[in-house]
Amino acid sequence: MPTAEQFTALFEPRGVLIAGASTHPGKFGFVSLHNILASGYRGKVFATNRDGSEVLGVQTVPDIDDLPDGEIDLVFVCTPKAANPELLRACARKGITAAFLTTAGYGESGPEGRAEEDELVALCEELGILLAGPNGQGVVSTPAQLCAQIVAPYPPAGPIGVASQSGNFVSSFLNMATATGIGISRAVSAGNAAMAGVADYLGWYASDAATKVGLAYVEGIDDGRGFFEAVRAITPEMPVVLVKGGATAGGARAASSHTGSLATNDRVFDGACRQAGVSRARTVEEAFEAAATLATQPLPAGNRVVVMTTAGGWGVVTADAI
Amino acid sequence: MPTAEQFTALFEPRGVLIAGASTHPGKFGFVSLHNILASGYRGKVFATNRDGSEVLGVQTVPDIDDLPDGEIDLVFVCTPKAANPELLRACARKGITAAFLTTAGYGESGPEGRAEEDELVALCEELGILLAGPNGQGVVSTPAQLCAQIVAPYPPAGPIGVASQSGNFVSSFLNMATATGIGISRAVSAGNAAMAGVADYLGWYASDAATKVGLAYVEGIDDGRGFFEAVRAITPEMPVVLVKGGATAGGARAASSHTGSLATNDRVFDGACRQAGVSRARTVEEAFEAAATLATQPLPAGNRVVVMTTAGGWGVVTADAI
Repeated sequence: MPTAEQFTALFEPRGVLIAGASTHPGKFGFVSLHNILASGYRGKVFATNRDGSEVLGVQTVPDIDDLPDGEIDLVFVCTPKAANPELLRACARKGITAAFLTTAGYGESGPEGRAEEDELVALCEELGILLAGPNGQGVVSTPAQLCAQIVAPYPPAGPIGVASQSGNFVSSFLNMATATGIGISRAVSAGNAAMAGVADYLGWYASDAATKVGLAYVEGIDDGRGFFEAVRAITPEMPVVLVKGGATAGGARAASSHTGSLATNDRVFDGACRQAGVSRARTVEEAFEAAATLATQPLPAGNRVVVMTTAGGWGVVTADAI
Repeated sequence: MPTAEQFTALFEPRGVLIAGASTHPGKFGFVSLHNILASGYRGKVFATNRDGSEVLGVQTVPDIDDLPDGEIDLVFVCTPKAANPELLRACARKGITAAFLTTAGYGESGPEGRAEEDELVALCEELGILLAGPNGQGVVSTPAQLCAQIVAPYPPAGPIGVASQSGNFVSSFLNMATATGIGISRAVSAGNAAMAGVADYLGWYASDAATKVGLAYVEGIDDGRGFFEAVRAITPEMPVVLVKGGATAGGARAASSHTGSLATNDRVFDGACRQAGVSRARTVEEAFEAAATLATQPLPAGNRVVVMTTAGGWGVVTADAI
């Protein structure tokens, strides 16, 4: 399990390296560099590119070894699979302790990719690097003004910490934050969650002063008991709202091809959430609404609720809902 | 049960009478007259007022007997309870065959009000008048450009027919229609549903050329078997989306004080919906989305569904949902 220092390197890096920066506006290596510059990230920004060309005003280098030592905490990886092991070794030599991998073709693609993913995890453990992803969309951290992701938007700052196995659901949550003004502290697309899973991110959020409520999407959980114990330890510190995909046989098949997730028994999972004090939402929209409520309202002291309404029908359906 | 001719009088009246028109902008008798004039209703508009004063440019009369014979089909009643029996007799003498009663204090207020409501139903049956309400918010009919209700908005025209035991949910549906542009044919707040219930309105919608899908909110059903038989006969003609309040003990208590509804067993109701071919939605928002989909997309020929998505997470939760 990654250390608190490694999570700090991921969410509060002193410097960021974009590995595989590109001059092509359609490439991850262009968009992520653009987002980092546009969000006003306050640390130093470095980038590599095969040709060493200038990208968005940043002078890239072809070789990581040409970058300064000890100034970079996070590498944002937009390079193809084959390049990554050597790249991560070079990053470790520079003192980098967190890597976000957008690269796909690992565990979600089949047995061969899964073996490569296992090797990647072993390598990162050997190098002392937190591996976020692979097959992830990026990481957002408003206290650091960091928008290291391959998509928009950069959300308003606020108390909600997002950890999701779907990158697009991170985007949805960030869009809802933008629409409602109820903002985000940290957000991470866990991708295949090879080394760091949703519960690991939530665990760090629980001790993070900027985060008041955790908002999670999970598709599959390899170690059900471990997940349960982890979130049960988190919820007394920080409320957690969770939405789960793959709750049905059809959804589980889709999840398997999306993030390589295994199926879980949904009723067991539901009971586990209840026991662990997790608020399980039925939809992505409902999940954000619950998180936004917990982010802006005091925690209720118990389950004694009064419904006040000027319209009878809403009183009825609200009474049904509680 | 009201006749098709009476429903036509309610939704396509040649002339409308506002009983209890008011010069005070806070009164039902002002707002409803304003809405009827503002929506561009094409029939004749009449109004009564104790003083016979002019209201919104309409010359009112104190006495219904002074109005022309055979030109008015619908009376919109904003008068207090005590005035209504004599008023309805006078309306019948003018050939009026449909009455919408906004008046509260009937069945929802207790045993005494329930007795008065029963008397009102008996009187309307005797007079040949369809009684809509009481304790209702109004009726909207876009083919007639009629907005006879005590609240905004007047929605865009379209194929969705709304029948609801909550007036405020009618407003919500009309607001969603305005927001999405997927419009409304007819909408009625059934109020206490003393004579005409949600299933009765849906039954008329099923044979209404302007309506393609029924959208209903129900709180309580006195005659479960009758409701089931009625909607089962409707769904082969027109898809019906339904949301139900009072599904829990707490909600049922709230429903009892709202519209005087009796509790139902929710699992029995759920099974009955399935057997009757009704699409039951969990929330008001979901109900409108389902109705809007049925209103704008072809009916699926079966349950073989393909999910196409560019983002994996949505594929997973959509597979879960179907």
